[in-house]
Amino acid sequence: MLKELYENLNEIKHLVNIRELLGWDQQVYLPEKGAGERAQQLELLSRIIHNRSTEPKFLNLVDSLAADIESFDEEDQVNIRETKKQIDRARKQPESFIAEQTKVAALCWSAWTKARPANDFKSVAPLLEQVITLAKEKTKLIGFEEHPYDALLDLYEPGAKLSQVKPLLIELGEELRKIAPICAQKTAGAKDLVGEYDEGLQYKLAQRVLKDIGYDFEAGRLDKTHHPFATSLGSEDIRVTTRYSRHSYLSSLFTTLHEGGHALYEAGLQKKWAGTPMGRAVSLGIHESQSRLWENLIGRSRSFSRYLHRVVAEFFPEEARRSGVNDIWDQCNKVEPSLIRVEADEVTYSLHVLIRLLLEEELISGNLAVKDLPGAWRDLYKKYLGIEPKTDREGVLQDVHWYGGSVGYFSTYALGNIFGAMMMEKIRAVIPSLDAQIEQGRFNELLHWLNKNIHEHGMRYYSPELVKHSTGQDVSVKPFVNYLKGKFGVS
Amino acid sequence: MLKELYENLNEIKHLVNIRELLGWDQQVYLPEKGAGERAQQLELLSRIIHNRSTEPKFLNLVDSLAADIESFDEEDQVNIRETKKQIDRARKQPESFIAEQTKVAALCWSAWTKARPANDFKSVAPLLEQVITLAKEKTKLIGFEEHPYDALLDLYEPGAKLSQVKPLLIELGEELRKIAPICAQKTAGAKDLVGEYDEGLQYKLAQRVLKDIGYDFEAGRLDKTHHPFATSLGSEDIRVTTRYSRHSYLSSLFTTLHEGGHALYEAGLQKKWAGTPMGRAVSLGIHESQSRLWENLIGRSRSFSRYLHRVVAEFFPEEARRSGVNDIWDQCNKVEPSLIRVEADEVTYSLHVLIRLLLEEELISGNLAVKDLPGAWRDLYKKYLGIEPKTDREGVLQDVHWYGGSVGYFSTYALGNIFGAMMMEKIRAVIPSLDAQIEQGRFNELLHWLNKNIHEHGMRYYSPELVKHSTGQDVSVKPFVNYLKGKFGVS
Repeated sequence: MLKELYENLNEIKHLVNIRELLGWDQQVYLPEKGAGERAQQLELLSRIIHNRSTEPKFLNLVDSLAADIESFDEEDQVNIRETKKQIDRARKQPESFIAEQTKVAALCWSAWTKARPANDFKSVAPLLEQVITLAKEKTKLIGFEEHPYDALLDLYEPGAKLSQVKPLLIELGEELRKIAPICAQKTAGAKDLVGEYDEGLQYKLAQRVLKDIGYDFEAGRLDKTHHPFATSLGSEDIRVTTRYSRHSYLSSLFTTLHEGGHALYEAGLQKKWAGTPMGRAVSLGIHESQSRLWENLIGRSRSFSRYLHRVVAEFFPEEARRSGVNDIWDQCNKVEPSLIRVEADEVTYSLHVLIRLLLEEELISGNLAVKDLPGAWRDLYKKYLGIEPKTDREGVLQDVHWYGGSVGYFSTYALGNIFGAMMMEKIRAVIPSLDAQIEQGRFNELLHWLNKNIHEHGMRYYSPELVKHSTGQDVSVKPFVNYLKGKFGVS
Repeated sequence: MLKELYENLNEIKHLVNIRELLGWDQQVYLPEKGAGERAQQLELLSRIIHNRSTEPKFLNLVDSLAADIESFDEEDQVNIRETKKQIDRARKQPESFIAEQTKVAALCWSAWTKARPANDFKSVAPLLEQVITLAKEKTKLIGFEEHPYDALLDLYEPGAKLSQVKPLLIELGEELRKIAPICAQKTAGAKDLVGEYDEGLQYKLAQRVLKDIGYDFEAGRLDKTHHPFATSLGSEDIRVTTRYSRHSYLSSLFTTLHEGGHALYEAGLQKKWAGTPMGRAVSLGIHESQSRLWENLIGRSRSFSRYLHRVVAEFFPEEARRSGVNDIWDQCNKVEPSLIRVEADEVTYSLHVLIRLLLEEELISGNLAVKDLPGAWRDLYKKYLGIEPKTDREGVLQDVHWYGGSVGYFSTYALGNIFGAMMMEKIRAVIPSLDAQIEQGRFNELLHWLNKNIHEHGMRYYSPELVKHSTGQDVSVKPFVNYLKGKFGVS
């Protein structure tokens, strides 16, 4: 029966990978006029995946295995447990509900794409209200122990509860709002990049850095998109996309490092478990810990600036003459309270996330109406960042998530910062020469640690257990806060 | 019921388009290590397409419609007739037979990829024998009226019969072997290209020419592959690939024109009939008539050389100074008997095809054993081209078709030449200023004629009827022979 489970999961994996290819092509190479039919292809394939994943024969098989779960090996147990969890959740949501949710999300997303540039929250508010209503309905269908929000959070961060995540993020927020102004003051003098950077050379630089950190170009590629992402089209076909800014080679480089970090996680999953929960990333928080570890904890370190200065000299020799190691470090470590999450620095970023978590809680609890969202948004920005948006475009309209139907997602970004810093503290303890290695462009010992301690576990442990297992510590904001204080010299 | 037919065909179309995307990506962008899983994805998707196309509900629906076919509009009748033909053919071949054939073809293809460079026909002969045995078996399963070969031919050229195609190609062959030596003598003095041509500029030149002939880059793209092709990923997503030779910008350009011709046919099919036989190319012969019309009848004409000289000057000004209009014409019109089909000139090309048709007939009739194929190959090359290969690599091992399981395919290449020349004769009669238009880079009137008279009919008429309908003539080799005689000044 176990064999049958794996055959089923293998086929579903192929279908999901095919859908990833459709999505990748859609964002990277699809000609304009092909968009309509591509949407239909994606819809059909999603229907096929749904039907395949809910075939009565398959459901019965999983139920039988789950009833006898203790009799299997530990890793098989993980696969049975998670597959059972998934199908049970699917069972609780009638097809008509899923269809309704998909439809409303598509409409709301479409309205948002117009509302955002027009700075017109009112036009999208009724649809957002429907999204929230359906999200609340979903929490009832799926069920929860403590708080309805947990049912949504669990979709992105399995096992997580608001009662743990919220205090953690509030504690972090309190620390960050204290140190942010000091960091901002200390980094105020950074001189800006002034050059123009050829896109072809930026691509070569990105390729070089990806290769150095351990990304395998025989099992992946780097392409250009508007909205960068990493995606798995197979266990040895893990692709990264990036974008290029003519006036900042650093902007593209950090995007590439971020997506490269996601890709290294996917590449580090055990191939023999491909398509099963044991070969799957455990949560978005852990995924984000990997992308942010490479982008920030490594990429924005002094030793990486030294490595980068050397590599930049190969592609942009003039730039390397103009800016030294310290200039590079300054350019990528400027702290400044700002309105847009995706442009935020390492210190203030998690404050943007906390604000969204607090708003999501209120929306799902029913304490906040959609029409009052812009005001609540402004209040929280004032409280945590000391600034407030003049327009909704720079405020509540900035992120796609809610409008695209994803509620409960945001906190995983901040969890990624917390988890990543905990890992890094441990890594620095076990690899004392880490900075020397980074400076020399040697990342293999670091990647090996991540492979062994994080990636290869797949869904064996949920995030708090995984962090405990890999670092010996319970989840805490201290390592992240201490890291920032140390980095920016805040006592 | 008709609505249901079209819903079914629409869904099957999407699945087929998705498979085309997998294939396109496989040849264009797939990273090396992703090949294994991609093959599995393709296999799964083919299985899904097969199951979807042979669902009892769908088969019954088609049967019911076919029983009452006279009651429908003409275009619906075409769709019912062709769908019925397709499912009947599928029914006659047990799944086990299809599986066996697919397996043998894959093994034989794989053996061929090693046998060809090693010049080792013997190593692949046993598998090729299995391919031929299964092809013979297929003719029995599908059935035929006159000759078993017809059952195979019909897969590529619906309705065609050996009793018509063979005499036609023999007649053509007799004419060509007479004029080929004269043409070779007349074109012997052409001076070769001597430059080096930057790939980026070659891409821009190809893009420019494709745009000029009417290819829509908002509904397609041009990428680079080893083995160029055109493919439809949607009715408004029709992609072309080409390859670049550093030492001949013309080699890439004619490849692009050829694939562009295929793409223009697909783009000219009626979108409202997408996914149905009325919105599908009728045959490989007609498809090839379009690719060869653009590549040869237009692309290798004196007026196109004039246009090309002007365009080349924009991208390779030095080349345009070095080679005048007549040089370009000479460079792309050198006639010379050669051993490799895909490198053959316009005059001798069809002789290569005739040879393969004659061999296929003998193989399927059982008059020729696979082990005797290399000898028979040499004899026919000596007879028709006056030269014979010294190695099987330059002989019977050169083409993938048979080894990949495709028997009955070859004659469509020569039919394409014959059909294309007939269309061109008609086009020249109705557009007297054609050469002036070509010279100016205006191809819209020509494309419009092809759209209206060829493309938009889909599968309404089989090739002889389509040619008759569009040109007023019965199928004949004369227009093609006369065209060649005129072009090369043979009396």
